[in-house]
Amino acid sequence: MSYKPWDGRFAEKTDELVEAFTSSIDVDRHLYKYDIEGSIAHSKMMANQNIISDDEAKAIEDGLLKIKNEIEEGSFQYSDSLEDIHMHIESRLVHYAGDAAKKLHTGRSRNDQVALDVRLYLRSETKAIIKQLQDLLKVIVTFAKNNIDVPVAGYTHLQRAQPVLLAHHMMAYYEMFKRDMERLEDSLKRVDVMPLGSAALAGTTYDLDREYTAKLLDFPEVSKNSMDSVSDRDFIVEFISAASLCMVHFSRISEELIIWSSSEFNFIEISDGFTTGSSIMPQKKNPDVAEIVRGKTGRVVGNLMAIITLMKSLPLAYNRDMQEDKTPLFDTVDTLKASIAVYTGMIPNISVNKEKMFESTTVGFINATDMADYLVTKGMPFREAHSVVGKTVSYALSKEKEIHDLTIGELKEFTDLADNDLFDFLTTESMIERRISRGGTSSSNVKAAIDEAEKFLE
Amino acid sequence: MSYKPWDGRFAEKTDELVEAFTSSIDVDRHLYKYDIEGSIAHSKMMANQNIISDDEAKAIEDGLLKIKNEIEEGSFQYSDSLEDIHMHIESRLVHYAGDAAKKLHTGRSRNDQVALDVRLYLRSETKAIIKQLQDLLKVIVTFAKNNIDVPVAGYTHLQRAQPVLLAHHMMAYYEMFKRDMERLEDSLKRVDVMPLGSAALAGTTYDLDREYTAKLLDFPEVSKNSMDSVSDRDFIVEFISAASLCMVHFSRISEELIIWSSSEFNFIEISDGFTTGSSIMPQKKNPDVAEIVRGKTGRVVGNLMAIITLMKSLPLAYNRDMQEDKTPLFDTVDTLKASIAVYTGMIPNISVNKEKMFESTTVGFINATDMADYLVTKGMPFREAHSVVGKTVSYALSKEKEIHDLTIGELKEFTDLADNDLFDFLTTESMIERRISRGGTSSSNVKAAIDEAEKFLE
Amino acid sequence: MSYKPWDGRFAEKTDELVEAFTSSIDVDRHLYKYDIEGSIAHSKMMANQNIISDDEAKAIEDGLLKIKNEIEEGSFQYSDSLEDIHMHIESRLVHYAGDAAKKLHTGRSRNDQVALDVRLYLRSETKAIIKQLQDLLKVIVTFAKNNIDVPVAGYTHLQRAQPVLLAHHMMAYYEMFKRDMERLEDSLKRVDVMPLGSAALAGTTYDLDREYTAKLLDFPEVSKNSMDSVSDRDFIVEFISAASLCMVHFSRISEELIIWSSSEFNFIEISDGFTTGSSIMPQKKNPDVAEIVRGKTGRVVGNLMAIITLMKSLPLAYNRDMQEDKTPLFDTVDTLKASIAVYTGMIPNISVNKEKMFESTTVGFINATDMADYLVTKGMPFREAHSVVGKTVSYALSKEKEIHDLTIGELKEFTDLADNDLFDFLTTESMIERRISRGGTSSSNVKAAIDEAEKFLE
Amino acid sequence: MSYKPWDGRFAEKTDELVEAFTSSIDVDRHLYKYDIEGSIAHSKMMANQNIISDDEAKAIEDGLLKIKNEIEEGSFQYSDSLEDIHMHIESRLVHYAGDAAKKLHTGRSRNDQVALDVRLYLRSETKAIIKQLQDLLKVIVTFAKNNIDVPVAGYTHLQRAQPVLLAHHMMAYYEMFKRDMERLEDSLKRVDVMPLGSAALAGTTYDLDREYTAKLLDFPEVSKNSMDSVSDRDFIVEFISAASLCMVHFSRISEELIIWSSSEFNFIEISDGFTTGSSIMPQKKNPDVAEIVRGKTGRVVGNLMAIITLMKSLPLAYNRDMQEDKTPLFDTVDTLKASIAVYTGMIPNISVNKEKMFESTTVGFINATDMADYLVTKGMPFREAHSVVGKTVSYALSKEKEIHDLTIGELKEFTDLADNDLFDFLTTESMIERRISRGGTSSSNVKAAIDEAEKFLE
Repeated sequence: MSYKPWDGRFAEKTDELVEAFTSSIDVDRHLYKYDIEGSIAHSKMMANQNIISDDEAKAIEDGLLKIKNEIEEGSFQYSDSLEDIHMHIESRLVHYAGDAAKKLHTGRSRNDQVALDVRLYLRSETKAIIKQLQDLLKVIVTFAKNNIDVPVAGYTHLQRAQPVLLAHHMMAYYEMFKRDMERLEDSLKRVDVMPLGSAALAGTTYDLDREYTAKLLDFPEVSKNSMDSVSDRDFIVEFISAASLCMVHFSRISEELIIWSSSEFNFIEISDGFTTGSSIMPQKKNPDVAEIVRGKTGRVVGNLMAIITLMKSLPLAYNRDMQEDKTPLFDTVDTLKASIAVYTGMIPNISVNKEKMFESTTVGFINATDMADYLVTKGMPFREAHSVVGKTVSYALSKEKEIHDLTIGELKEFTDLADNDLFDFLTTESMIERRISRGGTSSSNVKAAIDEAEKFLE
Repeated sequence: MSYKPWDGRFAEKTDELVEAFTSSIDVDRHLYKYDIEGSIAHSKMMANQNIISDDEAKAIEDGLLKIKNEIEEGSFQYSDSLEDIHMHIESRLVHYAGDAAKKLHTGRSRNDQVALDVRLYLRSETKAIIKQLQDLLKVIVTFAKNNIDVPVAGYTHLQRAQPVLLAHHMMAYYEMFKRDMERLEDSLKRVDVMPLGSAALAGTTYDLDREYTAKLLDFPEVSKNSMDSVSDRDFIVEFISAASLCMVHFSRISEELIIWSSSEFNFIEISDGFTTGSSIMPQKKNPDVAEIVRGKTGRVVGNLMAIITLMKSLPLAYNRDMQEDKTPLFDTVDTLKASIAVYTGMIPNISVNKEKMFESTTVGFINATDMADYLVTKGMPFREAHSVVGKTVSYALSKEKEIHDLTIGELKEFTDLADNDLFDFLTTESMIERRISRGGTSSSNVKAAIDEAEKFLE
Repeated sequence: MSYKPWDGRFAEKTDELVEAFTSSIDVDRHLYKYDIEGSIAHSKMMANQNIISDDEAKAIEDGLLKIKNEIEEGSFQYSDSLEDIHMHIESRLVHYAGDAAKKLHTGRSRNDQVALDVRLYLRSETKAIIKQLQDLLKVIVTFAKNNIDVPVAGYTHLQRAQPVLLAHHMMAYYEMFKRDMERLEDSLKRVDVMPLGSAALAGTTYDLDREYTAKLLDFPEVSKNSMDSVSDRDFIVEFISAASLCMVHFSRISEELIIWSSSEFNFIEISDGFTTGSSIMPQKKNPDVAEIVRGKTGRVVGNLMAIITLMKSLPLAYNRDMQEDKTPLFDTVDTLKASIAVYTGMIPNISVNKEKMFESTTVGFINATDMADYLVTKGMPFREAHSVVGKTVSYALSKEKEIHDLTIGELKEFTDLADNDLFDFLTTESMIERRISRGGTSSSNVKAAIDEAEKFLE
Repeated sequence: MSYKPWDGRFAEKTDELVEAFTSSIDVDRHLYKYDIEGSIAHSKMMANQNIISDDEAKAIEDGLLKIKNEIEEGSFQYSDSLEDIHMHIESRLVHYAGDAAKKLHTGRSRNDQVALDVRLYLRSETKAIIKQLQDLLKVIVTFAKNNIDVPVAGYTHLQRAQPVLLAHHMMAYYEMFKRDMERLEDSLKRVDVMPLGSAALAGTTYDLDREYTAKLLDFPEVSKNSMDSVSDRDFIVEFISAASLCMVHFSRISEELIIWSSSEFNFIEISDGFTTGSSIMPQKKNPDVAEIVRGKTGRVVGNLMAIITLMKSLPLAYNRDMQEDKTPLFDTVDTLKASIAVYTGMIPNISVNKEKMFESTTVGFINATDMADYLVTKGMPFREAHSVVGKTVSYALSKEKEIHDLTIGELKEFTDLADNDLFDFLTTESMIERRISRGGTSSSNVKAAIDEAEKFLE
């Protein structure tokens, strides 16, 4: 159990406290699959280059696959004294493959090995997340489609501003999560680079065929500078940055669902399966999922700060600090995946209170801008129209009425340009349908956006 | 297994994904001890107030202690469907205490219950950390004492600036970690407040004696506003802030130990037990412990950002987001404790290369300031002396000599005030011993500081 | 204009780009007052110790006061080539005080000088902020007093939970901001330490009386280790941490005021003087002040991250990185002061919609907990009562009624224990007044809390 | 001076404190150029659509250009009461263009206007930064070329690990800054989207031709959802994320330059023009530029945290919090540009101490790995070779010798495989030249990398 890959020159044993402190096996064991995949490719390449024999490569591969089985079955033994997943696997491989096992580490170091493992892991997870985001986008588009005829107040400053279609509102989140997907796709370019063969930091003296290893592992390119390869964690920072922004989007939609679930707004009801109750207040039906996702935003942002702080001021090349990169990375992957999953499940379980939403478009002077626009169409400069309507609103407020409840006579006190056709102008439907500028909320615009989205998602 | 404390009004079952997503049992199980301690106090107080009978209180206490045993023995059963540690314990208590168990939740809510548990936890851990810091301070003082006669270059901008005693250098860290201790002590005042009895948010209708509960749990005061009590996480933010600063101090001493361990500096050697080797480079003896601690600074700073981001913009009172407070808190406690422990173990395992350290005080024009001071004592204004010495340094550099290697003749080229007594002025010992201003590096000053520290630590 | 305090050994001129890049005069000029105050104390102490003559000290003081005048009148000339405020003042002092000026820098370095200046600045600003917080607390207490009889729904998860007094709700913020004040007071202990005399890093050879300088500048103690003194920025981190938490509190009350200002809640109206309108929507009256304060939370948290990242891994003693401490510090002070000031102005300008608030306590099954409590007083265990009420709520929902709108017959379907006295139990007033546990929302509790607060604030 | 675009319905004047607090003119005045550019395009498009007349468009354009002149000449008057740059310009335009000016705001809102301005600004600055980075890359490549024959120790854990070419070391930074460039290029895709025409949040009723506006302003596409358009700040977060990573790279190279400038390493000397001295220590020549850049990393990371915290939990659509986006954005742009500029200036001003660098490759058992490789070529499994060499190193250490100073007899004590050809294996040159795996440090590899870089940079 005391196999250490480096203890040749050491007289004293490692302090037990230190062994536990420096061990990373609890965290990096999650990389086992990628470590084995990378080792198989490395040994195949070495056989191809005649650095090891084909039999040795075969013994290595067979042994590694047995170890994979042991790990997945739960029979594999872990120990702090073996430091990390790489040593656990290599140590166990001696049992299966004997001397061949000892040759596996030829031409590589743990520095490039762990860089490879993390890249394999993150490539796989990023692709999985992109797929999840596609599913989320589909659910959003379906929600928008199902609510294409539902007007609701659009808010700025959480004040009713102008009526919009609920579908339009939701499609704003479509845009956000689509950008998240694109950012992740861009980031993949910088993950998808094969570092093995950089060895400890300077490259290796063995005649490795790095392009062949890359091909076996489906990497489009190999890394270009060995010192950079073993100390580069940019791709982790970039991933967690993209994840943070995605979580910020979740925090925003969560905030809205929470506000909409309040008795006061009463715009939506989230189904029982996606809410929880209170241990003391029997009436409560809390939007816990949205709240926890909002809370988890902090977690991912914290991970971003952790990895940035970690990397700050590290000299080249590898430093042991970098071992601490995995906790924030794994936690970010897990948190983001779970958040997307619950949201994809929850959105179809939101039922909409159409009456309440419609009501929000008829009360609160939400048609004030349109009255101003009306006056502009009659020739008044916009800034003047704005001022006239401001005064009309003040008057209506004092009478506890909406603009459209005033008489034409009252309206004419503020401007001669007001006429009976103004009232048609001020209905919810008219306000929405007239917003025809591209990207605006008219139903034809929103339908076109939904169509485009559906095509994109196919 | 499907006991939920709130499902009276729910028609549908909780979605499985949601059950796993909202469950906090994996994290908050660590609070079991405090949850049980708090529940026993609550039930005793209720018996005292005749809200429950003495027999009921006894049944509750006995049951809770049995559960504690089960948990510590590892026989306790956990399940996501029971959400959190509070429900796990309460659900199990029904088994032991029957109807009495159902009365335990009288006059309290999970909102004030979890606030109590976390405060009990953090109070205990903060005190433990303060004790650990005391041990660390002792180790630092001992190190300083053992090296009271070792001069070394003091650096600014990582440039040799003026000679100091190594003991003086280490005592700077004494000051830092002592401040950390004081900050934690100050923070305890705000942890040490008893929230139970605040119930869900509004207080409770039961005639609780909160002061009595506080007394049983050794709290000096009870919280004053029920809404604040259930939504206050300030004490967590304050703790993680203090921990972040402490980790920044560790990052600084780690940086120095790493630099000092380089071949170029070669000031120290950390013993085998506290270093590790390389899987590929047999000569390496890496200061991994210092590096990992430096890396863990990022982790704690990340936790600080996580909790702040989490709390930002939350309305009163309790929101489910707050469930996410525990991961960063627990991780910070664990990381800080481990970091202090390994450092306390490592410092006595650092051996000092006195020759190299001394050499650093004799090369690199480190006595330039003292030459300027010499000229000032002879009557030259400081700014002028500074300029004269600057020119002398340039000249010496061009001759590849130190100032004290120049002849008196050469020196007189720059100023008539230079005389043979200058050379005495420029020895390491003289430079150190003349720095007698309070807090300066003269050995009497440093000894006094060590004495004061030892007295403080007793 | 090209006076540099260090160019003796330099052959080449500083690159212009570098001159601008390294200059800090745009930022640290704000320290002029403290720099002059510290220099006067330093020269007085030196005269007292016979390091300079009384006449020289007088010339220095007179010159510095003239410079202070020039700066305050706006006639002082700034230049990047003079790097920082210390050099600007010292350079100008030569004009007024001749050779005496050149002696001012005896026994000190810019390293301890800037440490002193920043401590003087932050001590003064922290005290000013504490005073501002007291004013804010007064305004909050007055608001609470004026609304002592206004019930409103208390929320958890933004769901109506239990009725509380608006005064009780506001007093929760009293508790938060009071803790902020206490934290700042605690932090002052660590600001209030006199570093001058630490010189560059090792102390000085001059026979300074640091205690006398401390006395002149009203510091209770002098710093104990010269290396720590010039590299310690803990007090800045601690201040910005405390400020961040205070801003988090502002973000929370801002969130509430914004939600309460929505048409849907309609709980409050902020007066015209503290809101702004929209350039396009004439009806809008936006809670901009609350929004900007909420936004500025990010700014201060960013400053916290900036200073922590900056300090991470810096070796002893002074490093030029530390020059970057001033921007986040000054910005935090300015932002916090402005936020407190606008809030202190705004709170008295909030008018409360009592009807709407009251209505929120009568709709939404907010009395469900109290029905459960009622059943408990009749002997039912709490968990059972919770379940019974849950079912009652489901039934009432299906009938679109509140619990108190059900007939006694309907109620008895769920439990025999329900009786006519239940209806008295379920009124807003009764629910509030029965919450008599200390810290709960009953009016006597809240009045007592207000009284205590008023006493404290006197 | 009291022209407010929204005061129609307001009875009271804005509180003065509030006016100063909510005003953003001090910050957003830097957008004037883009605001004017956007307004001209908007008015041209409106003329094209016959929403305004050609004469009006001409009057607007002429007026705006005059205002631009005023601003650039410094004669423009600013006032807090006009809130922001948009209002300043529009208000002044009335003076020049009369009623036409009042029509400029037709079909747009400040919400989409500011979104446009910031995008124009950031597009321009991002492109400028990319250009700067290209210049930096050129300087790095030139440095590498000039030092193609300089061996130096490569470090891991700041311990000498294996010899590399200094050129190889520097080309690692080439890779990092090249990735930064690519990330910025990717981010441009999401900046380069035209938001105008989204109006306040819902789109506008005017028949705008958004594609035409986009064409005039050289945008490849228009934004697709009006609500998203006015509340999207993703592109700012993405930019500051990319900038943070770039600053992390600068912190790493700075750390190295600072360490290399120490007396102990003495690897480089930065020229006088790019260093500064000490006010108290005449010998000092400090790497201030590298230190300040390293310190500014905190500043940019702080800005990242500020913008993320700001955006967290904001509901749709525009909220006034977003006004706070500009300070962190502008500061990040300015800091990043200045850092790149000083580094581009400084690198050619670094002179290399070749002897010291070479010496670092011959002392410290840096050839241990190569001795292991030698044994592997003779047939020993790597793990065994590692152990043999470890013991050899221990022995040599005890003799105070390097491996290559041992006799062949001493070496044979550890393994029979050692032979005289081993000594050739262990020279610096041989160690470097044998690292021929792609991306490794052999001179042919490094030359190829430089060639490729030069081609890329053309």
